[in-house]
Formats: sequence, structure tokens, C-alpha cells
Amino acid sequence: MRKRLILSILFLAFLGLSSQAQEALFRAQQIISPEIHEDNTVTFRLLAPEAKSVQVTGDFLPTVKIDTPMGEMDGPGKADFIKNDKGVWEFKSQALGPELYNYSFIIDGFTTIDPNNPFLIRDVASVTNIFIIGGGHADLYKTNDIPHGTVARRWYDSPGLGMDRRITVYTPPGYESSSEKYPVLYLLHGAGGDEEAWISLGRAAQIMDNLIAQGKAKPMIIVMPNGNVIQDAAPGEGSLGYYKPQFMVPKTMDGTYEANFMDIIKFVESNYRVKANKDNRAIAGLSMGGYHTMHVSRYFPNTFNYMGLFSAAIMPREDATGKVYSDIDGTLKTQMENGYKLYWIAIGKTDFLYDANVEYREKLDGMGMKYEYVESEGGHTWRNWRVYLSDFAPKLFQ
Amino acid sequence: MRKRLILSILFLAFLGLSSQAQEALFRAQQIISPEIHEDNTVTFRLLAPEAKSVQVTGDFLPTVKIDTPMGEMDGPGKADFIKNDKGVWEFKSQALGPELYNYSFIIDGFTTIDPNNPFLIRDVASVTNIFIIGGGHADLYKTNDIPHGTVARRWYDSPGLGMDRRITVYTPPGYESSSEKYPVLYLLHGAGGDEEAWISLGRAAQIMDNLIAQGKAKPMIIVMPNGNVIQDAAPGEGSLGYYKPQFMVPKTMDGTYEANFMDIIKFVESNYRVKANKDNRAIAGLSMGGYHTMHVSRYFPNTFNYMGLFSAAIMPREDATGKVYSDIDGTLKTQMENGYKLYWIAIGKTDFLYDANVEYREKLDGMGMKYEYVESEGGHTWRNWRVYLSDFAPKLFQ
Repeated sequence: MRKRLILSILFLAFLGLSSQAQEALFRAQQIISPEIHEDNTVTFRLLAPEAKSVQVTGDFLPTVKIDTPMGEMDGPGKADFIKNDKGVWEFKSQALGPELYNYSFIIDGFTTIDPNNPFLIRDVASVTNIFIIGGGHADLYKTNDIPHGTVARRWYDSPGLGMDRRITVYTPPGYESSSEKYPVLYLLHGAGGDEEAWISLGRAAQIMDNLIAQGKAKPMIIVMPNGNVIQDAAPGEGSLGYYKPQFMVPKTMDGTYEANFMDIIKFVESNYRVKANKDNRAIAGLSMGGYHTMHVSRYFPNTFNYMGLFSAAIMPREDATGKVYSDIDGTLKTQMENGYKLYWIAIGKTDFLYDANVEYREKLDGMGMKYEYVESEGGHTWRNWRVYLSDFAPKLFQ
Repeated sequence: MRKRLILSILFLAFLGLSSQAQEALFRAQQIISPEIHEDNTVTFRLLAPEAKSVQVTGDFLPTVKIDTPMGEMDGPGKADFIKNDKGVWEFKSQALGPELYNYSFIIDGFTTIDPNNPFLIRDVASVTNIFIIGGGHADLYKTNDIPHGTVARRWYDSPGLGMDRRITVYTPPGYESSSEKYPVLYLLHGAGGDEEAWISLGRAAQIMDNLIAQGKAKPMIIVMPNGNVIQDAAPGEGSLGYYKPQFMVPKTMDGTYEANFMDIIKFVESNYRVKANKDNRAIAGLSMGGYHTMHVSRYFPNTFNYMGLFSAAIMPREDATGKVYSDIDGTLKTQMENGYKLYWIAIGKTDFLYDANVEYREKLDGMGMKYEYVESEGGHTWRNWRVYLSDFAPKLFQ
């Protein structure tokens, strides 16, 4: 009996408590990957005695030129591992600057995840591993030992879209225990994204917790809706079940979303303690979310005091025939005349939407519509959008 | 200019909006995997022209005997793919019964994920793909078009453990719009788990939404704390940052968690509209969480009216020297004398903890302490724990 108990304990300790855990342990790799060293070099490891070649690819490596059907483009670099006599492949990076990086392994030519790192992010249908090198702006992406806000996944009724829809809401530290009213930032994702994107890829909760703890941003509520009007929720989280996510979802840029944005504001303002006025409403988004921001804010031209266009996808579209897109110039003029505190435009120098943003700024200049403009290095990346949020949020509601 | 705009749109459509998405498209596989057919057979696919062999392993396949250091054990089965002339490997399963299944691919002997299925669950340090075959009990695991509760990740102050800690809270549909008070189920994870486990692996939110919509369970709040007292949050979600999760975390079963459980109850009862009395408190957990349930409920012997021990890890432990573990028989007797509505014990016939549960029931029988007992097929698996929650929740607060 004592022996059986000890056996049980050994089973518990060595064989895991679930079939998946057991499976994990059958194929256990007792190695650490990635290992971040004190000098910010990083060692990647893989136990694969039978493999012929192992490489890592990711945005911590210098970019390389890649031939594509659209011509030569920048693509993620690759680096070769070396195998030791125990069948463990290793690659050690150079010292890396502060950043949240993503990477994948390439095993005998096949791109896949690092099996020793369960921290993954999904971008559209692709899953990659991540790691953080701290310091500088990347410290904002970490969960530090400071007060934390709450992140809730809720469902709101959208009469305009005829469905209940999932929405992600960040409330700042202290929200639940105070009776104060808060300002609200509506934060929109890009094409291929959903109500999870700013939380997972954008680190929005960590950024806001850190900025608020440092006294750099006002405590505010962040509302992250789903901009794909045919979905009630992110892929895998809604009534459509599991399906392969697509980059371009039908009807995302046809005006339906913008026209029904008041459903979201109404939900927020009747469910949260908010300052329900223009002074205390901001809207921002990346790429398609920048396009949505531009159109929502001029279509409801006296609603928001702060606009943020991050790498905005400003472009005419063939399917943009909805009522929302009529009289763009007139509604922009009305928005300008109604007044606002901040119209903030940011884009990277190598972004493929750079020229479209130059043209848009020329249009605003021609009208005399004021904006702040930030031009960063880099292109159309989450790396930039995390920084844009970190720079934009402190400007709000001051 | 028109041409440039069209080019931009093409870029947008074909090359993705982020570096990760671009990377995803560079290695795009324009195939669907898994594809669930109407007859509930499932086709798995992989584009890997260079691979020598491709297999799938998962809990939808018959188990096989595997040699382990602990002797012969059941392990997940494997099935071989066949390659077509386009380099696409395929395997079609038999018709499968309703269930949430997990699986992995084995490419040239290397176990990894299906790159065409971004739906993954982490169990300890292991990540596997999932899919659902609907029907029967598995319909409870789906997000159906019904009212949905809210799932919030919050942080509570634990003076007893000296830190702020992350906690997952499900509030039922209608909670925010009503002024009603609700009963509470405290739902505990097993070793290697955390405050994410019941939501991701356990499908607790979907199960509760569906049971409530069907009128089978009372609307209730579900509180899912983190039972690893050295963590402030799940791996990757707390101040410890990213690190390789371990199966056995120090101090998880030394009594500290149980002794400080009132910190959690206090937080819940001062932050939510709850019926704060014994009649309206339930506690349940799987494996280590069943152990915690047993000890918390007898250490605070007049606190809970409903106890659920799912595959409970009932066993003496060498590190179980804390005050909580003194006078187990006496406190159980007090719990019995104080009275309760339900003491529910469930375990699978092949669970390695089966004998320990037989002994525990013998002890309860000897004392005259009443319980309901359910013996299911299968072993120590999430498959069972999802069913146990589905069966247990309808018995509460009726």
C-alpha cells in the first residue's frame, strides 16, 4: 500500500497528469530554448538527432531580399544551427536590442515552431514563437510588478449588424474599486486581425499598465472591437467555430462597420463608468483600423477629440460604395470645423502605404486640417504599432 | 497614380499587412487541415514535398502500448499519411464520435504542429492542435449563437501570499445588466495548470454558456484562481515573464494555497454581486485541484455547500507538513456535521489515482460521510474533466 502510494506519486511526478502532458513528456526535450543571456545574446536549441539541417528565421535577424510574384522584397533572415554530439542543434544570436521578437524554426526545410517555447502569437493563420529582450521601449511590453488593469472578453448587441459580437475591454487599475468616470480609447485592428490582435500582438494591456504606473498616460478604458462585420468573434471564438483565418475578410472595408460604430459606443457608454463626451473619446487603429478610424471619425464628425492613424490603409476601394464614403471632403471639413485636440498620423519610411499617406497629408494640408505627423523607421509591422500606441496614449485626455 | 493605388491594393491583398503575415504568406499552404466532413471523418493535410514520412498522432486514434521507464503504458496512436503527386500528404480518419480532440504531426520523426491549423492549446509546456467533432456532449464545447457570459482576467490582492495575483472570472449572461446576486463556483486546475487551464483546455465558458442557455444550470459566477503559490500568474502572463512551464511547481501542495484561500473568497465577495453564504458557494477541481478542493473545504468546514472532486489527487505527501494537513479526520468530521448539499466524486476506471480514490471513499464510508460517486470510462484526461464539469454544474444551487 505504501509502495502503491509512492508509485502513484512517481507517476504523478514523472508521467504528468493529463494525456497531453503525458504526450509532452514522452517527447520531452529537457533543454531550454530560447535562452536569453545577460548580454542580450540569445541561444536557440533543438533536440533533433536525425535532422539534416536546422535553421531559425525571425525578425531579430537582418532582413534579406526575397523574390516574390510582386518583385524583390525584404523578408526575414535565416541563420544555421550547429549540431553537437548529443544531437542538440544550437544557434547563438548577436546581442539584440530591446524588442518583442518573433521567430520560427526550419527543420530540414520545413518551417515550424520551437517545441521548447510554448509562447506563441497568431497573426492571421500563422503562428510564431515570441520572446522579449527587455530595456527601453520593450520594458513596456512586460508584465511588471505594478497594478494591473482587467481584460474582459464580453459580448455586445449590435442591432446594426444584427448579431451579438465579442469585444475586448481593458479597464485600468483601480477601475473596479473607484466611482470615478473614465475616458475611452477605441483601438482598432488591421486586416486579418480581430478583437484579440491588440491584446496578443499589440501588448496593449501591458503597455497601458506600464504607462499608467509611470504616470505617463491617464487611466483610461481601451475598447477593442472586431472590425470584420461578417464575424461575431475572432476565428475559433465565435459561432463560426474553427476555420482557417483569412487575411481579407469580405465586407471589412465596405462601410458597414463604420456606419454601425455607434452600436459599440452605445454599449460602452451604457455598461462602463465613462465620461461620455467628445473630450473623453479617442479612436485609433492600425492599417485597416487606421482606415476605419479616418472614416468613423469624419462620418460622426463631432464624436472624437483624438484620432490616431497608425500606418493607415488610406486608399479608394472598389467595394467602398457605402453611404459612409460619400462626401468624404465635406465631412472632413465638418470634422475640422467642429474642432478636435489631436489628429495623429504615424507611418514607417518603408511602409508600402507610405505614398498613400503622403497624398492624404497633402489633402489635409490643402484643406488646412491640422495633424501631428510621426515618421518612423521600418514598415508595416507590429513592432511599429506597439511603439505608436506607446507614444499616442500619453497624448490623450491630458 | 491609379496604377500605384492598384498595386497598393494588390500588396494589401496578397502580401499581408504585417511582417508575420508576410512570412506566413511566403510559406503559405493553400490547403485546409483538418477538414471535417459531414460524416465526421476528418482529413488531415500537409504540403511537404521533401518529407520522407508524415504521421499524425492524437487522442482521436486508438491508443497503443508504449514502453516507458515506469513500464508499459497507453500512449496516443499514430497513423501514416500518403503523399500525392503535388507533394501534399493526406490522412483520412474513420468517422469520429463527438469530442474535442488534440493532435500533432510527426514529420520525418519530428513531432510538431499542423501549420494549417492555428488553433492550439497549451498543456504545461506542450502545445497541440485541436478540433471539435460536434454532437452530444461536444456541442457544449462549441460557441453557439446564444447569450454569452463575460470572461475577465483580473488581479486580486493576496495578503496571505504577499502578492497581487491574476485570476480568471466568468460572469454569466445578464450579469452586467441585472442587479441580482449570484452563486459562485470556485473551479481549480491541476498540477502544471494555472488560471487559464479551465478556460482553454476545459472550455468552461462554452460549457456554462450552453448549460445556462438550455436551462440546465443556474446562472453562476465561476472563479478560476492560480493554484501555484509561487506564481503571480500563468507562465508568460506574470512578472516572471516567459519561461518553460513545469509540471510540478514548488509549494503547490504544501498547504499554503489552501490556508490562504479566504483571500480569494474575500476578493470575490467584495468585488462581485454574489450571494455570500454557504448555500451559494461551491468548490471543485481536477487532480491537484481535487486535492485542494478536499483540503480547502474541510479546513474551512462551514464555507461550501457543494464539493466536486474530479480525479482528485488524494495522497499523503512528504511536503504536506503545513498546518492545513493536521487533524484531517477531525476537520472532515466537522465538515460532515456542519452539513452540505453535495460531495461529488468522479474518476475514470483507468485513472492512476483510481485506487487512492477507492481508499478515500472507504474512509468516508467508515465515517458515514455521504457523497455521490461517478465512475467513468477513461483515465486522467481533460476529456473526462470537461464531462465532469458538464455533469456537476447542473447539480449546483438548485
